Amino acid sequence: MPGSSPHLQGQTTHIVEKVGTPALMMNKRTIREKYQEFRDQFKGARVYYALKANPHPGIVQLLQELGCEFEISSLGELESLLQLKVPTQGIISGNPVKERAFVERAHVSGIDLFAFDSYAEIDKLAECAPGSRVTVRLTVPNDGSEWPLSNKFGVESEDAADLLVRASARGLRPVGITFHVGSQCTKAATWAKAIDKSRIVWELAADRGIQLHLLNVGGGFPIEYLRPVPSTAEIAEVIHESVARAFPGGVDLAIAPGRALVGEAGILAATVIAKAVRDSKPWIYLDVGVFNGLMESVGGIKYRILTPRDGPPIQCVLAGPSCDSFDVISTEAEVPHLEVGDRIHIMSAGAYTTAYASQFDGFHIPAIHYTE
Amino acid sequence: MPGSSPHLQGQTTHIVEKVGTPALMMNKRTIREKYQEFRDQFKGARVYYALKANPHPGIVQLLQELGCEFEISSLGELESLLQLKVPTQGIISGNPVKERAFVERAHVSGIDLFAFDSYAEIDKLAECAPGSRVTVRLTVPNDGSEWPLSNKFGVESEDAADLLVRASARGLRPVGITFHVGSQCTKAATWAKAIDKSRIVWELAADRGIQLHLLNVGGGFPIEYLRPVPSTAEIAEVIHESVARAFPGGVDLAIAPGRALVGEAGILAATVIAKAVRDSKPWIYLDVGVFNGLMESVGGIKYRILTPRDGPPIQCVLAGPSCDSFDVISTEAEVPHLEVGDRIHIMSAGAYTTAYASQFDGFHIPAIHYTE
Repeated sequence: MPGSSPHLQGQTTHIVEKVGTPALMMNKRTIREKYQEFRDQFKGARVYYALKANPHPGIVQLLQELGCEFEISSLGELESLLQLKVPTQGIISGNPVKERAFVERAHVSGIDLFAFDSYAEIDKLAECAPGSRVTVRLTVPNDGSEWPLSNKFGVESEDAADLLVRASARGLRPVGITFHVGSQCTKAATWAKAIDKSRIVWELAADRGIQLHLLNVGGGFPIEYLRPVPSTAEIAEVIHESVARAFPGGVDLAIAPGRALVGEAGILAATVIAKAVRDSKPWIYLDVGVFNGLMESVGGIKYRILTPRDGPPIQCVLAGPSCDSFDVISTEAEVPHLEVGDRIHIMSAGAYTTAYASQFDGFHIPAIHYTE
Repeated sequence: MPGSSPHLQGQTTHIVEKVGTPALMMNKRTIREKYQEFRDQFKGARVYYALKANPHPGIVQLLQELGCEFEISSLGELESLLQLKVPTQGIISGNPVKERAFVERAHVSGIDLFAFDSYAEIDKLAECAPGSRVTVRLTVPNDGSEWPLSNKFGVESEDAADLLVRASARGLRPVGITFHVGSQCTKAATWAKAIDKSRIVWELAADRGIQLHLLNVGGGFPIEYLRPVPSTAEIAEVIHESVARAFPGGVDLAIAPGRALVGEAGILAATVIAKAVRDSKPWIYLDVGVFNGLMESVGGIKYRILTPRDGPPIQCVLAGPSCDSFDVISTEAEVPHLEVGDRIHIMSAGAYTTAYASQFDGFHIPAIHYTE
């Protein structure tokens, strides 16, 4: 289980004693190892970190030192990277739908690759980032993913080809295709289907005089919460095989992992603040909940929880600290008998936790600290 | 419709031209009128503003000038009120489940009324706020409310009486009962049922030597979004009748509105940043979405939207700006044909919008400005 080594648990406990809870402890070694794993498994590909997973400056700096590049969505994300002196040639814009002010600023800053999937966006890009390289976002099956993304973004193959032609007519440079299999995707075959579908667009575009060379297979690489997931190597193998079969002439491959680079590196340290019995079921209240860090529990993520107590697991409701009934982390958590004041560790909490967090009801967002 | 007067729309447009979007425009006159309405309808009752609805300093200052008191849940909320010099004799702690550090700080600051609903909380209060006055949180029916609260907090009548006896034995001073009918409750009869149930606890406690005098009927007062709701006067009448019938000896009545004091005072100004057609359905993307202001749309709140365009309403999907598929405000919004760049006004957006907001994906939380 990631993060559960006695050494790392010890470091975490030591820091938490000083800084209190809730606190998100990010382990630098795990991030390094994860990045290296993607480098090794995707040789020759460009690796863009999807910043939205966890935009904390310490993570950006570490990944940048390692040679990682970045995928962003907004002016806010761009400004944070510029402040950290990230070179813009290593930044791409992955959001198919963008604010005009972001596109303008990105263009003058030197960002030259934008995803899109609508005619309105072509007009915006042609006006605010003339001559830029663009990738069309293709709708692909999201089988086996925890958070399917297909309904909000992406177009079907015919439309994708039409959009590429139109972009070219407006002076943009269509270079490739991007897709997303959905977040926390546990079926490697889903990438294979998406790659096969990309080939159709590729050929439709070629028939109309548009030569593509870039294939961004996105993120969605799963991490381990409670259950084992396919390894990066297994998924990479499927992707490489599919690409070789679908594109015998080769492609420039890009990937954009977010969760997979930082999720397993994070331990969210929390404290039991209260206990109750309701309808004969035990309730455990923590100082971190749905609003200040565990929003993904609403979408079905079940975190592994390490506690300082032995004893058989008891099924209980795990809730956050706020006055809001929506602030329930799990109705079927299993933890040993706990007491008020106990410190617990919520594992694999490095992605989409503090990133989603708000200060609702006056509860602080966990501060981020680093372990070696 | 609240907020739709030409005068107020004009003021809002004027400020938004300067400050840009997204921006939450809070109208002070509406807050004043709403507070006065509660004062008039609940003569003799103490009115506590449930700070979590919108904790912005300007709102606190205005309500304080008007004589309103405050209900809080956390150390963060306490600190913000202390910073604004709110006297602690006008603050109560409404969260049945509290962090120890909050209780300690509240006690030394002079807060003397705490809600609770578990044995563990009695221990905490007896240790950290000895001798304090306490109210027990009773589970009550949540019929007709948009966000039922009953499963996370509250106990049944017998347990409530037991807890009051136990609190007394630990040196706390049990003074009354608190309940919550659920947020945005549109059935006045739900309060009546809760009051009848409170009487049972009252009598059970009296039989065991505990004389109560305080009844906090909580919040849940509804506001107008798309559909009309019962007026404060209608709900007040039901509450007064029920109290008179259930407690012929009289009670000290308290109410804790949040949404009802500030919701209709807020206009969230937003801009159309993109458009697309997906599965033959129009999609409109705004610069505010589920994460940076409209979280309650996930729970079913449908906002009224004013646009600068005439023309027949078109059914469309209204989405936020982030890369996240969860960031969809409504799949069945009805607005006239809109263009990228159009400014729209989302009405009755003063409560539980910026309060829940995060900066996910780099999109800013709407700044709050005030109109007269």
